[in-house]
Amino acid sequence: MQKLRPYLSPILKKLKRGPAVTLPKDAGLIISYTGIGKNSRVIELGSGSGFLTVQFANIVKEVVSYEKREEFLRIAESNAKKVGFENVIFKHRDVLSGIEEQNEDYDLVFCDIAEAEKTVVYALKALRKGGFLAAHCLHVEQARALVIEAKKYFEDVQMIEAIVRDFEVDDRGTRPVHIGLTHTAYLVFARK
Amino acid sequence: MQKLRPYLSPILKKLKRGPAVTLPKDAGLIISYTGIGKNSRVIELGSGSGFLTVQFANIVKEVVSYEKREEFLRIAESNAKKVGFENVIFKHRDVLSGIEEQNEDYDLVFCDIAEAEKTVVYALKALRKGGFLAAHCLHVEQARALVIEAKKYFEDVQMIEAIVRDFEVDDRGTRPVHIGLTHTAYLVFARK
Amino acid sequence: MQKLRPYLSPILKKLKRGPAVTLPKDAGLIISYTGIGKNSRVIELGSGSGFLTVQFANIVKEVVSYEKREEFLRIAESNAKKVGFENVIFKHRDVLSGIEEQNEDYDLVFCDIAEAEKTVVYALKALRKGGFLAAHCLHVEQARALVIEAKKYFEDVQMIEAIVRDFEVDDRGTRPVHIGLTHTAYLVFARK
Amino acid sequence: MQKLRPYLSPILKKLKRGPAVTLPKDAGLIISYTGIGKNSRVIELGSGSGFLTVQFANIVKEVVSYEKREEFLRIAESNAKKVGFENVIFKHRDVLSGIEEQNEDYDLVFCDIAEAEKTVVYALKALRKGGFLAAHCLHVEQARALVIEAKKYFEDVQMIEAIVRDFEVDDRGTRPVHIGLTHTAYLVFARK
Repeated sequence: MQKLRPYLSPILKKLKRGPAVTLPKDAGLIISYTGIGKNSRVIELGSGSGFLTVQFANIVKEVVSYEKREEFLRIAESNAKKVGFENVIFKHRDVLSGIEEQNEDYDLVFCDIAEAEKTVVYALKALRKGGFLAAHCLHVEQARALVIEAKKYFEDVQMIEAIVRDFEVDDRGTRPVHIGLTHTAYLVFARK
Repeated sequence: MQKLRPYLSPILKKLKRGPAVTLPKDAGLIISYTGIGKNSRVIELGSGSGFLTVQFANIVKEVVSYEKREEFLRIAESNAKKVGFENVIFKHRDVLSGIEEQNEDYDLVFCDIAEAEKTVVYALKALRKGGFLAAHCLHVEQARALVIEAKKYFEDVQMIEAIVRDFEVDDRGTRPVHIGLTHTAYLVFARK
Repeated sequence: MQKLRPYLSPILKKLKRGPAVTLPKDAGLIISYTGIGKNSRVIELGSGSGFLTVQFANIVKEVVSYEKREEFLRIAESNAKKVGFENVIFKHRDVLSGIEEQNEDYDLVFCDIAEAEKTVVYALKALRKGGFLAAHCLHVEQARALVIEAKKYFEDVQMIEAIVRDFEVDDRGTRPVHIGLTHTAYLVFARK
Repeated sequence: MQKLRPYLSPILKKLKRGPAVTLPKDAGLIISYTGIGKNSRVIELGSGSGFLTVQFANIVKEVVSYEKREEFLRIAESNAKKVGFENVIFKHRDVLSGIEEQNEDYDLVFCDIAEAEKTVVYALKALRKGGFLAAHCLHVEQARALVIEAKKYFEDVQMIEAIVRDFEVDDRGTRPVHIGLTHTAYLVFARK
């Protein structure tokens, strides 16, 4: 059985892989659903390996990325450096005890930590009116907890999941590949 | 039966809807799979209603957007104006007779016309080494024709499809909505 | 927007539709995953409109079908009569207070009620060694509760979900329909 | 990476696996969409390993199963014997040259061979009014060719595809498994 290699855009191929990463499959939806662009300022809660950090940095003006585990922070920093992005500020901190940006002027707070629902109040104070809280949740229960908490303060709260399949095109015909990724994450979005 | 309203990011809600549009569901994958960002220059073949044009313009440095039907061109131009983007150049022309940009310096040629495979040779000359040809194909046959033609000149040619489902979260529990979008398009990617 | 009409096999088209029904999409998986056949004896907890009752009766030797709401029971009985099946015994009873069949000789106990996990102990006593408990759960939380309870007594406990899409085949090409069913139920299976 | 083991119902676990098999995931839909039951008579074109033959035999009155390759026929016969079914007649023949049953009295002709569209005329003569032609097609093009040919003679011609995902339920929460089957086959149904 062949090894499954999820698709990575060119920028990501150079990166070292540490903890679980946010793949282009989900990163794309986070970008397009929140409408962030080159003038946006983004806060990331949980740098992980920095894969999403780099994808954000490629698009937006400024990224602040928090990570509580030092070994992950170093991987993420090293990855951002590798692709030459200078618009990322990494911060070593457990976001469950709060974040520094509380001036309601960020466009997106993205959360990829286990108890995302506990960051809702911090996100609220970091975001401008119309800004988005978004999150990448492995389990249904995590997504649900965040949806319920976010509904107290945000509008247009939604939970989605994407199934992306690759196709084989050859002389015999066209069909989806037989074996592939069947789940990465549930995504949650909430607009302030 | 309730009317189905596919999700639109805030920027798109202001737009007038003409011909079929590329939704955030697919726009996000186009952005993340090709890795375009704020320094990228993009050519769009088929402006349609300009929904993707606007999503590109929000992210990249420059967009050139071709449309052969004048009534669509006007909708797209008006939509781009509505959101205040000035980094889009619209061109009224049938791209099957060629495009002007042939200096191998664009990062992405995105194609949303019926016979995308006929634009492969033009895309090839417009793209820098490492740049992407991408397309939004309604039918399997269109995607297949493009994959086969692109394989002659490009690397890493792939065809994908995304199924994105919305979830309902309420007191009774969590589940996908019963009725929703089951198909928008097959996406094709090819790297020069 | 056209009305969505989920597919029904010929036998089901004659039936009157009351409460939510188990569609062929899920009925098929229940049949094939449990391996029931013409020698099987099945207990159904929750007749509903009798759509699944009829699909079972068409295949197996004997069906016992419980329903606590009298108006549903009448619809189900009338539907079974309409297709002429005489191998179904309907029982008017709330299964949360137990079921009569406790001799460990049934092949399948199928559950389509809200708190399926409360029927696990009754199912256990009704089933032969190797028989299946199966259930149709609308929400993730219901399926999860059943899985957790079933794991205490059963083997090979599994939870699945099927997404079935219809395709359009015409002169323009082949593609899934744009709008369709995106969720019916999670199915749970457990083998004694 | 763990080996992927598609689910098999108890009856199938005893069988020897030769050529590609029709899994319960698709077998169930074939059964429920066509509405076959214990009084049905079925013809199978392409026995393969006999996995579907056995699933049919478990449910219907009589199965006639054609296979042109002798080594497959032997596997299928041996598998049917292993589970003790005596209601299957195996025939060694290439069905592209026709089948013997032409009295319009079968309930289902199921086709699992490469050029299914070439069997439409034989199926037509084998089936009773209201009976079904169904097929398991690996590629889009095969399903399309069959749909187009079937539409000339049959009603309610449809093409579907099922994506079935397994879920993990543990202390951390509930989610689909990360890696799994993303395609087995397109199914085509046509009613006489």
